[in-house]
Amino acid sequence: METIPSLSDIKRAHQRIQQYILRTPVLTSNSIDEMTGAKVFFKCENFQKVGSFKMRGASNMIFGFRPEERVNGFATHSSGNHAQAVALASKLGGSKAYVVMPKDSTRVKIDAVKEYGAEIIFCEPNEKSRQETCDKVIQDTGAIFVHPFNDYRIIAGQATAAKEFIEEVDDLDVIMTPVGGGGLSAGTTLAAKYLDPMMEVILGEPENVDDTYRSLEEGKILPVNGKPTIADGLKTTVGDKNFEIIQSHVKQVITVSEKEIVNAMRMVWERMKIIVEPSSAVPLAAVLKNKKMFNNKRIGIIFTGGNVDLFNLPFKN
Amino acid sequence: METIPSLSDIKRAHQRIQQYILRTPVLTSNSIDEMTGAKVFFKCENFQKVGSFKMRGASNMIFGFRPEERVNGFATHSSGNHAQAVALASKLGGSKAYVVMPKDSTRVKIDAVKEYGAEIIFCEPNEKSRQETCDKVIQDTGAIFVHPFNDYRIIAGQATAAKEFIEEVDDLDVIMTPVGGGGLSAGTTLAAKYLDPMMEVILGEPENVDDTYRSLEEGKILPVNGKPTIADGLKTTVGDKNFEIIQSHVKQVITVSEKEIVNAMRMVWERMKIIVEPSSAVPLAAVLKNKKMFNNKRIGIIFTGGNVDLFNLPFKN
Repeated sequence: METIPSLSDIKRAHQRIQQYILRTPVLTSNSIDEMTGAKVFFKCENFQKVGSFKMRGASNMIFGFRPEERVNGFATHSSGNHAQAVALASKLGGSKAYVVMPKDSTRVKIDAVKEYGAEIIFCEPNEKSRQETCDKVIQDTGAIFVHPFNDYRIIAGQATAAKEFIEEVDDLDVIMTPVGGGGLSAGTTLAAKYLDPMMEVILGEPENVDDTYRSLEEGKILPVNGKPTIADGLKTTVGDKNFEIIQSHVKQVITVSEKEIVNAMRMVWERMKIIVEPSSAVPLAAVLKNKKMFNNKRIGIIFTGGNVDLFNLPFKN
Repeated sequence: METIPSLSDIKRAHQRIQQYILRTPVLTSNSIDEMTGAKVFFKCENFQKVGSFKMRGASNMIFGFRPEERVNGFATHSSGNHAQAVALASKLGGSKAYVVMPKDSTRVKIDAVKEYGAEIIFCEPNEKSRQETCDKVIQDTGAIFVHPFNDYRIIAGQATAAKEFIEEVDDLDVIMTPVGGGGLSAGTTLAAKYLDPMMEVILGEPENVDDTYRSLEEGKILPVNGKPTIADGLKTTVGDKNFEIIQSHVKQVITVSEKEIVNAMRMVWERMKIIVEPSSAVPLAAVLKNKKMFNNKRIGIIFTGGNVDLFNLPFKN
């Protein structure tokens, strides 16, 4: 796919991945509505296979290849949710998955990828080694590289979450996602633009990795400045394919502090009794920070995932 | 209600509380099915109002009174989920709620009860002071006492969870709850007995508070021996009304260790991405401990609630 996905591309993606993903539920919470002063709908990709929306993009890319094209398997160098998604989608497609991970990755992440049957290749914990190791794997095996976000096939796959959301909930005023590399936010932007052009698309981003916020201000991509964030799915600089789409239709990026992220996450855990990862809580944190702006609006928020390390939670007295 | 609730009593309870409770969803998990070797259905009372099945019994009791009988309000001396349920049900019925709590109760519990508008009366942290303080409140205010479990109206209310469960899922071989005071387990026993007499009722209980297990063996109520358990909803000795019902139809009580409870709880959090309290995990722990016995069975487990203190979780490295 060489051009920005069309509505037909997104529909085709949805058709293609249907049997490999779950149609996740949309939940609401009276107490969160009270606390925000808005009517908030949550699309629960934390209940998605592998616990994250990443299963949509990976499935769309992998099942976009014919079986005979899939024989050498797939490779990626993410160590988070995307890696698990590539591992599971490959397995479902009868292919092998190769995942390059820094050798200091946590046990939890290693185990999760292994559980879905991927082969792990460890690299040094730096960008150069990661890239070189991945290139070598691809050269040795003939595996196809699956980029975590900067690919139109991935974007079209992630767009299916917003498509389902818009089909399910009428008259949303705003749709929101967090933004990291931009796969989900670009996909959501396209789905919104095509299916309900009057709906606003607003993104949430941690202050500590506010590259998309700054990039939109400047009109060109500025890299993350590498401060730490608990929302570890959002650490990457936005991709150029993603940025172009975001730039075309996103109304605003709202940045939030680490504390605001943890508070919003805690609110979801306590009030909704469901587990979402810190990245998922970023848009809700943005709403809570700007109650006036969102007052009485019908807001759709995509919960990106629910993979957390229970032995290392951010709730501290 | 002076006699053991009949099927009509349970149906009437369900009718009565309908507008005050949620019809909670039934969820399943492929990975938990794989790990147990059974087909397990979970009735999610963790999503119930106030985060626990206790809302059913309290609503049935409180709305069983005519408005003019409710003017002096309701009182209880529980400090957990039951207190929150009495507080909310009273508020919905336009009555006042008085909750007697030990003065060393945690902030979280105090705040939760306050949030639902109850008046809190603190007592010394012992049984005598609790009872005396509660008696005095009732004498001073004319409030009606709402027992947490040993009351047929409470039992009929709690029975509605199993009634919904059986209506929703066909052909369960076994239905399971944890047992503490016995409100939910007696209610479940009655619903099962009336609606599907061939279905087995099996209870889970922490080894550290195995009074119901021992009481069934002995044929008479033996009190808890007061060892600590993380499943703090299950610390009480089973009530006599509850025990009589349990004795009449429960097939077996399975006891589990503290470690087994935490492991099962962790499995639910990690695999299902939902928050359940330790008590909820006790029946699943019992299944995991007895895989052979439950092999290939269709098992219904009631998740009792989802109220946990996020600042004090049992997951330790």
